[in-house]
Amino acid sequence: MSSGLEINVGLMGLGVVGGGVAATLVEQADVLSRKIGRPVKLKKVLVRDRTKPRAAILPKALITTNPEEILGDPAIQIVVEVIGGIEPATRYLTDALTAGKHVVTANKEVMAKHGPELMSLAQQKGVNLLFEASVGGGIPIVGCLMNELLANDVHSIRTIINGTTNYILTRMAHHRTDFRQALREAQEHGYAEADPTNDVEGHDAAYKLAILATLAFHTRVRPEDIYCQGISGLEAQDFRYAQELGYAIKSLAIATLADGAIQARVYPALVPQDHMLAKVDGVYNAVEVEGSLAGKVLFHGMGAGRGPTTSAVVGDLMDIARRLGQERRPVPAVQLHNHLRVEPIDNLESKYYLRLNVSDRPGVLAQIARILGDGTISIASVLQKDADPAKQTAQIVITTHPAREASVQQALRLVAALPVVQQVNNLLRIEE
Amino acid sequence: MSSGLEINVGLMGLGVVGGGVAATLVEQADVLSRKIGRPVKLKKVLVRDRTKPRAAILPKALITTNPEEILGDPAIQIVVEVIGGIEPATRYLTDALTAGKHVVTANKEVMAKHGPELMSLAQQKGVNLLFEASVGGGIPIVGCLMNELLANDVHSIRTIINGTTNYILTRMAHHRTDFRQALREAQEHGYAEADPTNDVEGHDAAYKLAILATLAFHTRVRPEDIYCQGISGLEAQDFRYAQELGYAIKSLAIATLADGAIQARVYPALVPQDHMLAKVDGVYNAVEVEGSLAGKVLFHGMGAGRGPTTSAVVGDLMDIARRLGQERRPVPAVQLHNHLRVEPIDNLESKYYLRLNVSDRPGVLAQIARILGDGTISIASVLQKDADPAKQTAQIVITTHPAREASVQQALRLVAALPVVQQVNNLLRIEE
Repeated sequence: MSSGLEINVGLMGLGVVGGGVAATLVEQADVLSRKIGRPVKLKKVLVRDRTKPRAAILPKALITTNPEEILGDPAIQIVVEVIGGIEPATRYLTDALTAGKHVVTANKEVMAKHGPELMSLAQQKGVNLLFEASVGGGIPIVGCLMNELLANDVHSIRTIINGTTNYILTRMAHHRTDFRQALREAQEHGYAEADPTNDVEGHDAAYKLAILATLAFHTRVRPEDIYCQGISGLEAQDFRYAQELGYAIKSLAIATLADGAIQARVYPALVPQDHMLAKVDGVYNAVEVEGSLAGKVLFHGMGAGRGPTTSAVVGDLMDIARRLGQERRPVPAVQLHNHLRVEPIDNLESKYYLRLNVSDRPGVLAQIARILGDGTISIASVLQKDADPAKQTAQIVITTHPAREASVQQALRLVAALPVVQQVNNLLRIEE
Repeated sequence: MSSGLEINVGLMGLGVVGGGVAATLVEQADVLSRKIGRPVKLKKVLVRDRTKPRAAILPKALITTNPEEILGDPAIQIVVEVIGGIEPATRYLTDALTAGKHVVTANKEVMAKHGPELMSLAQQKGVNLLFEASVGGGIPIVGCLMNELLANDVHSIRTIINGTTNYILTRMAHHRTDFRQALREAQEHGYAEADPTNDVEGHDAAYKLAILATLAFHTRVRPEDIYCQGISGLEAQDFRYAQELGYAIKSLAIATLADGAIQARVYPALVPQDHMLAKVDGVYNAVEVEGSLAGKVLFHGMGAGRGPTTSAVVGDLMDIARRLGQERRPVPAVQLHNHLRVEPIDNLESKYYLRLNVSDRPGVLAQIARILGDGTISIASVLQKDADPAKQTAQIVITTHPAREASVQQALRLVAALPVVQQVNNLLRIEE
């Protein structure tokens, strides 16, 4: 098929993922050429520090610290960016596209914040910008939203998209460890960073959700449009009570479309135990897309790590290489034509799980129930648990029927002000 | 993007799927045009019987009974075939490709039997042949094997790929119904045909597995290379015993690659209850691909029906339309360069579940164990169940450690010949 002319690749970044990409391009060169129909050659690799020891397989002549040796080389048709972070990555991506090069990136932060501008630059230059590796590692969700599932109007995307938090919550659920202990274990296994804020507070998930929602709804969704609640407020008893009520607790990143508006949020939520998302354990990720034609399609796989991310990056690279003719051709780009509104979390309609620490005496529940009733929040179930005779306190766990977030927050402020309520421990949404 | 020139589509077949495709192309014309970047127009629809009542939305002038009005019309760039069956579909597909038209088909039988010839014809003519809808309905597994996961060497594909059998097995497992009753229910719900042979005996799954294995291993795998065992031999007690041993029973279509050879088979098997595949219920399908880079990626969704199949067909159509320039261009095709051997089932290495009806008296197990031992088949567990004092019989359920299929079959013949063995009820593999 097509010509035997080789395709030259410039790789920017040689960390965990860059190393995997380089190794695959070099070690698997023959297999890749057969699958693509023509040879792909790694022509140059950008690193920050030339003196750092590298895998022996890369000839020294390939390594450079000067980005211009990639961006300014007309023989390089495809640039792969796996540096991460906003700068200098954004500048490199912009320069590569401007120079008419196809681009593959694994950069979720750049794609979440500047994706639409970069996509439109790519379209204007008649080149491809692919970013499968920016979300979900080895799960091919970006490509499927752009291609295989494109015939659908997407109604919702429900995801477990951060492996660190899912590992921590899985430990807390199955081993009764508390949050700090589970976080420590995640750090020991290399699943969490020394400063875990980005994962634990939901920012990483919000970047990924912004990318998926933008593709799914053909509307720009920005990370700052997404409500974020972290998992550090969860305690062992939340898992116990949730289980008793028939639920698992998972940190979900969800975007839904209703009445022409998008609702996008990241938070720990209760999920029915028999739901597929409840069964996603450890560092695995899952994405459930509900489409107008396909119905619910769920993807499950490893969301991070050298292998899965390399699978996504090299897959994108092969996609471009297989379609690369000798002349430049018009390129299909994602159309962001919908311009839908992204709603504030206040407008969310959900069921809720509420855990309170209260004085253990008669009439307390009545006071709380009255406030909820005044706010037209209907109670679905109440558990009174773990009375502490010494402190004369008890736990009250309330689940509600669907209610509006703003009403629930307002009622909660009044509940918290009751003299009999020692503490509002947790407010979680129930996703069914 | 690109030109505003419209793309003309010829649709062959207007049954359940054809009706869905036609409705989507007509009713969603605006949305599709925006997503594609140029208008797509349904120009002609081939039907067998012009007098049959049709949805009002299709103008009469679009309907024809003459295939030449599609195959011979140079203005039609994309042909969609949803007739099903081998002929005349194979001839139409061949003629369309020969005429230089891009083709989208939902035809699993044709693609399983003649896919490689048609793919090579398409490549030679510089056109696309896409067939996402031939396997797994709304699950985008064909596209992902051809594109998103292409960087991986695939080690295995494990699937639940026939909704009819999965519905029947789910009923048998959860409602203790027997096979005939569950089949009747499936027929009442429209999930099984009046003659259910094709589904129940595994032929439908074998067609789909042949397609997936061919793509995954870059080697032609023919339906007749695939060992097929149906589900009609399963009885209620198999589900009870399996559950007791910690397993679910699922009809799996599996292709694995080891030592340079492919092993492909369709059979009911025991799957550990906590495996994701054990949790696939009802008419849902699932496909688990294990790749060298991505690890295990699981896809779960609706494997049949008008909506999901339309999602796949229209997705393929949009893929072609989005990439269609004004001139013909070289096309990436699947390379079948591996030429691997497909092994007979005799060489399978597996754990086994064996259920026997035996005389309920001392020494029986010893006789059976001796035969298995002589065949170097190592026993993992034995259950003696459901003694019937009237008939003086009991059930023996044996699970084994990994053994070779040929040895197990040989031992089973000897066991069946023992005077104390009334019947060999079932031999199932255990997939872990």
